[in-house]
Amino acid sequence: MTHEKPLILIANDDGINAPGIHELINYVADMGQIVAIAPDAPRSGQSSAISVNKVLRVTRHDDYNGAEMYSVNGTPVDCVKLGMHAILPRRPDLILSGINHGSNSGNSIIYSGTMGAVLEGCMLGIPSIGFSYLSHDEKADISVCRDVVKTVTAKVMEHGLPHDICLNVNIPKSDRINGIKVVRAARGFWTEEYADYVDPHGKPFYWLTGKFHNEEPDNPMTDHYWLDRGYASVVPCHPDQSAADQIDNIENLLG
Amino acid sequence: MTHEKPLILIANDDGINAPGIHELINYVADMGQIVAIAPDAPRSGQSSAISVNKVLRVTRHDDYNGAEMYSVNGTPVDCVKLGMHAILPRRPDLILSGINHGSNSGNSIIYSGTMGAVLEGCMLGIPSIGFSYLSHDEKADISVCRDVVKTVTAKVMEHGLPHDICLNVNIPKSDRINGIKVVRAARGFWTEEYADYVDPHGKPFYWLTGKFHNEEPDNPMTDHYWLDRGYASVVPCHPDQSAADQIDNIENLLG
Repeated sequence: MTHEKPLILIANDDGINAPGIHELINYVADMGQIVAIAPDAPRSGQSSAISVNKVLRVTRHDDYNGAEMYSVNGTPVDCVKLGMHAILPRRPDLILSGINHGSNSGNSIIYSGTMGAVLEGCMLGIPSIGFSYLSHDEKADISVCRDVVKTVTAKVMEHGLPHDICLNVNIPKSDRINGIKVVRAARGFWTEEYADYVDPHGKPFYWLTGKFHNEEPDNPMTDHYWLDRGYASVVPCHPDQSAADQIDNIENLLG
Repeated sequence: MTHEKPLILIANDDGINAPGIHELINYVADMGQIVAIAPDAPRSGQSSAISVNKVLRVTRHDDYNGAEMYSVNGTPVDCVKLGMHAILPRRPDLILSGINHGSNSGNSIIYSGTMGAVLEGCMLGIPSIGFSYLSHDEKADISVCRDVVKTVTAKVMEHGLPHDICLNVNIPKSDRINGIKVVRAARGFWTEEYADYVDPHGKPFYWLTGKFHNEEPDNPMTDHYWLDRGYASVVPCHPDQSAADQIDNIENLLG
């Protein structure tokens, strides 16, 4: 038993057919026994959503580069939860998610299905890391991610992660990566959030779009600052959104 | 302009037809001009999910108790975002979400669509409060929530909330509420998460269920402790999941 390879669960939100999950498998194929469990279709922007009133099914696909491949007709969190319940041969030693096609920097963490899977793994007490590449182009060559993925994964396999902490790794669109910076998410908000249309019957409809407005572009404590300069960013995250340091404040306010 | 009533946006995740949103409108009807924008169908467990590849539409419904009523064919966060873009006459002074039919205590915040709408409001810089009642029975009499809703809402309208902080209010299933406690979310995890079935063709399928295992049932700093004792809980929450205090730790670990 002590000679068993580490078991690595790989999830994503772009779906079982996305290039990013195949590349991620390639990069860590030599580091453990890999089981990939991903949504059966793209589920970007699914955050930590769970399917509460829906029948879930698991479909087995052909193995890829030594990894068992499964899809679930649900969200990224469904993939982790149902993987633990019905697919994995034992509790995984590590959960990786991605490589996402598109940034999860700034406040995108909260909307990200990639990070939904990671936060779920973290709540289960399993070291969990999300990887995102700053291009939505699924045909892009993302091999620049290889060294970052291998370095961060190897260190986390060696040392583990602090209790209740997971990692959000973003990798810039660049020919080479200048280094890795551990930072916090840049504060900001989204603007110009919808494209407006009118249907053939004269009724309006809307399509989500938008730009992230970075409120602190010159702050070297933040992910955007270093991504803009060709560095990969690593943001430690915790699932618990309680603001314990505000309890006294709010007590006074309500009192 | 200075004599305008405060504009209150009310959202939820149980949908525009849920009793909870109608009761919430009743409780705050005298406190401002109310616009309710809710999903067109139940969207429990939708977290901070956004519809990224879907046409969104707005439908106007009959007014209810002086409130304008709209539905959106999307998630709770879509309701807030699209409400800001296409429905509300101006920036709201307050966002309320609920009253959810079912608990959002413990780590349920992260899955909650009710709290998804609240966290979105908070990121937009608008004081935002989520209300949940600890029964999934939509036919239950939830009038015991009235005083808690009115008290917390009035205090927040008077004093505002700290930057980047919103409130998660849970109200116990009880004939009377013993008081209001400001606390953090109880730590725990979910067990027995799926019911297992076999379809008529012999293939397995799954349905999400589960029980919250509270890791600290005797801790009076937590929401579950006081909910179990007939108190309403108020948990201050922040949307940013960055763990800035872990940056040095993770730097060392990756170094």
